Amino acid sequence: MTRFTLRRRVEFADTDMAGIVHFTAYFRYLEAAEHALLRSLGLSLFDAGGAARLDWPRVSASFDYRAPLRFDDEFDVRLRMQRLGQSSVTYRGEIVREGVVVAVGRATVVCCRVGKGGTLRAVRIPARVRALLAGTGAKAVRKAAPTTRRSRRRAGSG
Amino acid sequence: MTRFTLRRRVEFADTDMAGIVHFTAYFRYLEAAEHALLRSLGLSLFDAGGAARLDWPRVSASFDYRAPLRFDDEFDVRLRMQRLGQSSVTYRGEIVREGVVVAVGRATVVCCRVGKGGTLRAVRIPARVRALLAGTGAKAVRKAAPTTRRSRRRAGSG
Amino acid sequence: MTRFTLRRRVEFADTDMAGIVHFTAYFRYLEAAEHALLRSLGLSLFDAGGAARLDWPRVSASFDYRAPLRFDDEFDVRLRMQRLGQSSVTYRGEIVREGVVVAVGRATVVCCRVGKGGTLRAVRIPARVRALLAGTGAKAVRKAAPTTRRSRRRAGSG
Amino acid sequence: MTRFTLRRRVEFADTDMAGIVHFTAYFRYLEAAEHALLRSLGLSLFDAGGAARLDWPRVSASFDYRAPLRFDDEFDVRLRMQRLGQSSVTYRGEIVREGVVVAVGRATVVCCRVGKGGTLRAVRIPARVRALLAGTGAKAVRKAAPTTRRSRRRAGSG
Repeated sequence: MTRFTLRRRVEFADTDMAGIVHFTAYFRYLEAAEHALLRSLGLSLFDAGGAARLDWPRVSASFDYRAPLRFDDEFDVRLRMQRLGQSSVTYRGEIVREGVVVAVGRATVVCCRVGKGGTLRAVRIPARVRALLAGTGAKAVRKAAPTTRRSRRRAGSG
Repeated sequence: MTRFTLRRRVEFADTDMAGIVHFTAYFRYLEAAEHALLRSLGLSLFDAGGAARLDWPRVSASFDYRAPLRFDDEFDVRLRMQRLGQSSVTYRGEIVREGVVVAVGRATVVCCRVGKGGTLRAVRIPARVRALLAGTGAKAVRKAAPTTRRSRRRAGSG
Repeated sequence: MTRFTLRRRVEFADTDMAGIVHFTAYFRYLEAAEHALLRSLGLSLFDAGGAARLDWPRVSASFDYRAPLRFDDEFDVRLRMQRLGQSSVTYRGEIVREGVVVAVGRATVVCCRVGKGGTLRAVRIPARVRALLAGTGAKAVRKAAPTTRRSRRRAGSG
Repeated sequence: MTRFTLRRRVEFADTDMAGIVHFTAYFRYLEAAEHALLRSLGLSLFDAGGAARLDWPRVSASFDYRAPLRFDDEFDVRLRMQRLGQSSVTYRGEIVREGVVVAVGRATVVCCRVGKGGTLRAVRIPARVRALLAGTGAKAVRKAAPTTRRSRRRAGSG
């Protein structure tokens, strides 16, 4: 499966008084890698291939932490698209420092159309966007799976 | 089981260009509730009941998002201590706006002793701290459970 | 001159590896107090008293730091509206812990109309909004002062 | 005078509901450039050239905003060390997008020794550190200037 790697360095503002990177920063690292992956495919985050504006709010996000990152550490976010649903995409990202996986994150985003007043409604991923995403080697799911259906009801946040 | 509720309001800096609260903010809300719970028990975050300094890095954190929060929304973080292990504590927190659960988060933190140079080593939760936590009604686990053992190897981050 | 005070407590996520509150957090504290002041006047941040939507981007923001804040510190943001221009408002906020001013911040925001595609254009503060703001005791400036004119050219950011 | 340029791209998490970069993000950009400049000189942020540990808390920070940055914008932070005092350093940084200066920031940091319990005490910049900084072309100030003396009393924050 295709991997996308984002190289990055811990910044001072990412740290907390325990002397290590605050746990929320990893979620920003993962999100930055997702957007860099889309960009590498020629996709803009809000691009629906027409007049409509898309957004990809999260329905879930998680991280398992194995070892701390510290200020100035260089690391990779090794991102993989794990599942391509009718309207959702699931990413898995490893935070790797000097060859060691220090944290593993997951995120499921749902393709939503942005309506009047910023309302969000889950929609099928547009064909052009889907084709580009599928090209990354993600396992395409043709039939609406349980997760997808639940996601439709849950035009989530973030 | 004891619940602790933290009342809060969405701030402008918590929002993103999608017009809703950025998904990472929920993790900060949950963390703030955890610390408010400890404070309500008379516990300081770094207090080991002696000279030693403790820290509680996370080994995991997750959120499921059901509906977006928006600027100025008032909400509650309804926190529950779900599991009290030998060296770990698992929290579950619901984000509730006007009676509706809009997101559910979970976090497992591991009790660590802070050593020279800020190194972290997982240790048993000190008796005094444990007694106070147990008083909240969390289900105490006397024997090291699989999760606990794994946690010991994984003095995680955040 | 009218003061508005916001009581607050330092959160763990506000700290950095130096063991103190990161300098950017103070700017969020000041912004939160500004919005709380507007709310106390019955004003919504984006409310123009009609169909139009306003925004108040900053043209400048600064802080002078005298002593650090630390985790769990309780403090006040003592906010004062210093100047009410044709289209701009200048705030001054003191961060006060146990009676001691530990930091002083200033911010100038410009009243902008939000247009198509999120474009921002500086406009006169609507009369109803102005009346409410003037009621706080800010020194009203009837004639366009140099700063105000410059602000009009500089529909700034943030 | 020597300039140091940090290339960067706006991330989604940097934006707010006004659809532009939140004003606090610029301060993080400037700080990241400062640390990149130190790194380019072979200096570590906390390095005192011996056993002592230094920190560089801010006594002041400010930004003037001329035009907004938006998601995915690429920009440069053009950093210049403006003044090298006995114990303080003043930076000036321009945020430049496509050749246009969209914001200008300033920051004064004070060299502090980190003592027991994380206390901060302003000290003279160590000779080795000073020599490296001076090599960047900053205007060296040999005599304690008023700002410097005030800074000594004000072991600030951030």
